[in-house]
Amino acid sequence: MKKGVMRPGHVQIRVLDMEEALKHYRDLIGLIEMDRDDQGRVYLKAWTEVDKYSVILREADEPGLDFIGFKCLNENTLDKLNIDLIEFGCRTKELPANNLKDCGRRIQFTTPTGHTFELFANKKQTGKWGLENVNPEAWPEGLTGMKAVRFDHCLLYGPDIEKTTQLFCNVLGFDVAEQVIDENNVRISSFLTCSSKAHDIAFINHDEPGKFHHASFWLETWEDILRAADLISMKDVALDIGPTRHGLTHGKTIYFFDPSGNRSEVFCGGDYHYPDHPTVTWQAEALGKAIFYHDRALNERFLTVLT
Amino acid sequence: MKKGVMRPGHVQIRVLDMEEALKHYRDLIGLIEMDRDDQGRVYLKAWTEVDKYSVILREADEPGLDFIGFKCLNENTLDKLNIDLIEFGCRTKELPANNLKDCGRRIQFTTPTGHTFELFANKKQTGKWGLENVNPEAWPEGLTGMKAVRFDHCLLYGPDIEKTTQLFCNVLGFDVAEQVIDENNVRISSFLTCSSKAHDIAFINHDEPGKFHHASFWLETWEDILRAADLISMKDVALDIGPTRHGLTHGKTIYFFDPSGNRSEVFCGGDYHYPDHPTVTWQAEALGKAIFYHDRALNERFLTVLT
Amino acid sequence: MKKGVMRPGHVQIRVLDMEEALKHYRDLIGLIEMDRDDQGRVYLKAWTEVDKYSVILREADEPGLDFIGFKCLNENTLDKLNIDLIEFGCRTKELPANNLKDCGRRIQFTTPTGHTFELFANKKQTGKWGLENVNPEAWPEGLTGMKAVRFDHCLLYGPDIEKTTQLFCNVLGFDVAEQVIDENNVRISSFLTCSSKAHDIAFINHDEPGKFHHASFWLETWEDILRAADLISMKDVALDIGPTRHGLTHGKTIYFFDPSGNRSEVFCGGDYHYPDHPTVTWQAEALGKAIFYHDRALNERFLTVLT
Amino acid sequence: MKKGVMRPGHVQIRVLDMEEALKHYRDLIGLIEMDRDDQGRVYLKAWTEVDKYSVILREADEPGLDFIGFKCLNENTLDKLNIDLIEFGCRTKELPANNLKDCGRRIQFTTPTGHTFELFANKKQTGKWGLENVNPEAWPEGLTGMKAVRFDHCLLYGPDIEKTTQLFCNVLGFDVAEQVIDENNVRISSFLTCSSKAHDIAFINHDEPGKFHHASFWLETWEDILRAADLISMKDVALDIGPTRHGLTHGKTIYFFDPSGNRSEVFCGGDYHYPDHPTVTWQAEALGKAIFYHDRALNERFLTVLT
Repeated sequence: MKKGVMRPGHVQIRVLDMEEALKHYRDLIGLIEMDRDDQGRVYLKAWTEVDKYSVILREADEPGLDFIGFKCLNENTLDKLNIDLIEFGCRTKELPANNLKDCGRRIQFTTPTGHTFELFANKKQTGKWGLENVNPEAWPEGLTGMKAVRFDHCLLYGPDIEKTTQLFCNVLGFDVAEQVIDENNVRISSFLTCSSKAHDIAFINHDEPGKFHHASFWLETWEDILRAADLISMKDVALDIGPTRHGLTHGKTIYFFDPSGNRSEVFCGGDYHYPDHPTVTWQAEALGKAIFYHDRALNERFLTVLT
Repeated sequence: MKKGVMRPGHVQIRVLDMEEALKHYRDLIGLIEMDRDDQGRVYLKAWTEVDKYSVILREADEPGLDFIGFKCLNENTLDKLNIDLIEFGCRTKELPANNLKDCGRRIQFTTPTGHTFELFANKKQTGKWGLENVNPEAWPEGLTGMKAVRFDHCLLYGPDIEKTTQLFCNVLGFDVAEQVIDENNVRISSFLTCSSKAHDIAFINHDEPGKFHHASFWLETWEDILRAADLISMKDVALDIGPTRHGLTHGKTIYFFDPSGNRSEVFCGGDYHYPDHPTVTWQAEALGKAIFYHDRALNERFLTVLT
Repeated sequence: MKKGVMRPGHVQIRVLDMEEALKHYRDLIGLIEMDRDDQGRVYLKAWTEVDKYSVILREADEPGLDFIGFKCLNENTLDKLNIDLIEFGCRTKELPANNLKDCGRRIQFTTPTGHTFELFANKKQTGKWGLENVNPEAWPEGLTGMKAVRFDHCLLYGPDIEKTTQLFCNVLGFDVAEQVIDENNVRISSFLTCSSKAHDIAFINHDEPGKFHHASFWLETWEDILRAADLISMKDVALDIGPTRHGLTHGKTIYFFDPSGNRSEVFCGGDYHYPDHPTVTWQAEALGKAIFYHDRALNERFLTVLT
Repeated sequence: MKKGVMRPGHVQIRVLDMEEALKHYRDLIGLIEMDRDDQGRVYLKAWTEVDKYSVILREADEPGLDFIGFKCLNENTLDKLNIDLIEFGCRTKELPANNLKDCGRRIQFTTPTGHTFELFANKKQTGKWGLENVNPEAWPEGLTGMKAVRFDHCLLYGPDIEKTTQLFCNVLGFDVAEQVIDENNVRISSFLTCSSKAHDIAFINHDEPGKFHHASFWLETWEDILRAADLISMKDVALDIGPTRHGLTHGKTIYFFDPSGNRSEVFCGGDYHYPDHPTVTWQAEALGKAIFYHDRALNERFLTVLT
């Protein structure tokens, strides 16, 4: 957190049918429905999150990602970063408070990869779901499905990984925790962190801009990943791959699809990063192992991404 | 154990190169090398096994299964079962003691599926490896690789599942814990048990007789399956599929290959069976889910078996 | 299962207040309430059990154990064992079918330790709870609390361990999987099995007859033991000890009390036993480690048992 | 990391006998011996740590803590924090580079609780032990004992918790992730973080200054905690308490003692903290549950601390 950007605070995802989507994000992944707005958007959170919500679902004609919001330390940080973003060459747009329910003003910008990001500093805090803040129990009863612990990161596809990496590092204070380089030492993927997590956002090079690979939710253990896999099968949900481990970050993972075709991940574990740590590098010839550590090969679907 | 057959006591597997095979069974799976004989066969065991060995490796020109031996309560049981086998229509052959090192006489016979089995009642007991029998610790130090806990079962392919099932049930006192039936209610797979394990031996219908699908070793936990998967990748071993869960037995599993092409499984968990339990049935149209519960589809390799 | 005794089929426990007891056995341990009878007894089962019930709660003025029932292969086995019990010197009593709801006739007898046991061969089978017998899923949704997998065994205190051990071994076909011997090589505890489980029933020497130490339920993993411990704390249930491991059987365990003072155990893992395995011996000087492997000392409550 | 303090970088612990201590920290906890210096100090690290070492053992006449060092972003941060510390009222002392082997200059100061801390910005980086930085495997082979993942934090006892908390928060940029307050709302314990970990350093109120409760090492899973507990028993190491869970941070833990009487902890899991999160509060009347979540009572040893 070198520039005051704390964490991925929310993601807005487009879904084709809200009730079907809620079966996925609420009943299966285990997010908690917190609110709805007059646009019909549904706000959800994972149980350990202190802020009111981290996932916003919007019904639309095609699936995909609307935007990802990072929460910053305070309003001054927003003003400072707005200036730095403009200086870097981004056009920014300020959205007023409560455009997202119970969220303060947001500074939006587009990355060279073609994705919409936003920064915000205030959101209503409702506290961890089902727990008191005094003498809190270990976990709340009443969680459903995979019992997602927190919204963790997204993986995005698009062009100009290098410039996007510079934006996140130089302007927003992220580090490149891990990267993939091709045979010419050109970076084709950046796993970027503003914390000690192995990634708070990740990009893979792709010709078309603005593509969405997956939104990821953290579970606590490898047993939770097994139970997630079981639920995917029991509910006849479309599985992508897993349970397995990634090479990149070494997280343990499973990929699957929501009814609209958006890919979800639940994962646990994985490496940690501090600012003085050297970047971990994966070579393109080891890309199969970097992505799916056990299979050591990409599946055909891995390059399938949404607009 | 209705007829005195206790458990799968050993399996003899053919390997193309003994030193390469030992890297697999000893260093990777974690069996302990216990002895060699003047034919060059190597005898290994898993650490919790009380008998001296459970796996015999024989160097040969082609890989595959030589035979599987079941340990019986006592010598009288052998004599009784020999008669019953002959009455059932099997030709039996008695092999003298010490034909396998430190093993008593063995009664061999061939199943309708074309596999060689044998019964024996005595084998030298060396005790659990690395533990005393008085005030024993929880586990021994010095185990390697996957730290296999015990040899558990084999899966075999061949014709005439029905007659083979009758042989195991009526003569040897096994139960059909689980089965697969086709659309005409014909049994195309039997998972047979002489204990409370979900399977001590399993058969799948196949035109050619005597085929070997895999030998399986028990691990204690799903985390052990993960570490096994990691080792498979770290050692660049050929992975078949996993980590995943089976539908049949609900065991958690990973399949991989030894350097000769023999398939190995390590697994944990799974259902239990008592003689009064009804057989669990899987329908052929759910075969993908029955075999690989998460993928819900067979991989192309699943039907590849060895002579 | 050398004499046709398959498993502990049920235990009848006395409780002071039925509704409080149900909070413990049903809501906390996660047994499923299956039926009640006109005596007010409540019948419960764990989800993997095929029989209709395994725990019967009876409201009474003092807590403790009424009886433990072992399920046998068939009615002929009952008749045979009845004769053998009488020959051994036990007085037996036959209770008619449906004295316990949906249960066949039962042969009751008292062990030298002063405990009431019974044998039965038939009980209504309702199948695994929440699962089909065709293409069954891995586990049912809707389980509560600790999600107990099965009723597993009881530990009892009383005199004349030696004669009781002979009764179980010689008459009922059990093996002594593990034992504790004192400095004079006198057996002061027997862990007895009629299966490959490390114990189906266990006895510890005690001056007073007929004492009840605990009824034990099997969980699948060490993580399940942690969640059980968390629930015990969250619900303010009286903890005895754990999470920890036993030396005897090496099972991972937690002990706690029902509202009436009956001790419950949930545990996972542990050693397996076959009839040809030598008995594992613990010496009395290592009794602390034998009981509580990590603490290596008995807690003061361990010798507290109920009538 | 609001003021450039990244993490606990090292701890120097006094031991009575170096070879005995190495059996504890190297062979049991699984730290890797990296170097020794001409004072006889031994430098060790956990395998995921990029810096050369994190634990320094010094042979001395009494056990206890010499100092804890926090690693900062860069040398400028050191200068800035040195000024801020002096301004806060601390006397600081600069130790030259290589006073600790391969470590840059260190700024030492004493907290109101009477403990010696130091800040440093440079230490030789040897990379994760046993892994490459290009295409790294999931974990290295050859780890021993508990296979400690990283040095995590210390718990210290001393007076003036409030002023020490101000020092860490206002000068060094930490947050109070969790606290214990007494019946008069006086803070008697602070769990302080400079990252998203639940604690990078923790203090409990105590009349005597400079007391050392434990140094803690992170393991990956609850199964690793079990194996640690098993090893403690197998090696006849003095156990304090566990395996269990803390209420504070909700980490899963076991406490035990090195041969000199210094307490060690290995733990896994636990809550995370961001700067915008409210402090979690435990009330003194729930202190038993705050410290040992399952027992809900302090053990008698908990208040035993070293000079």
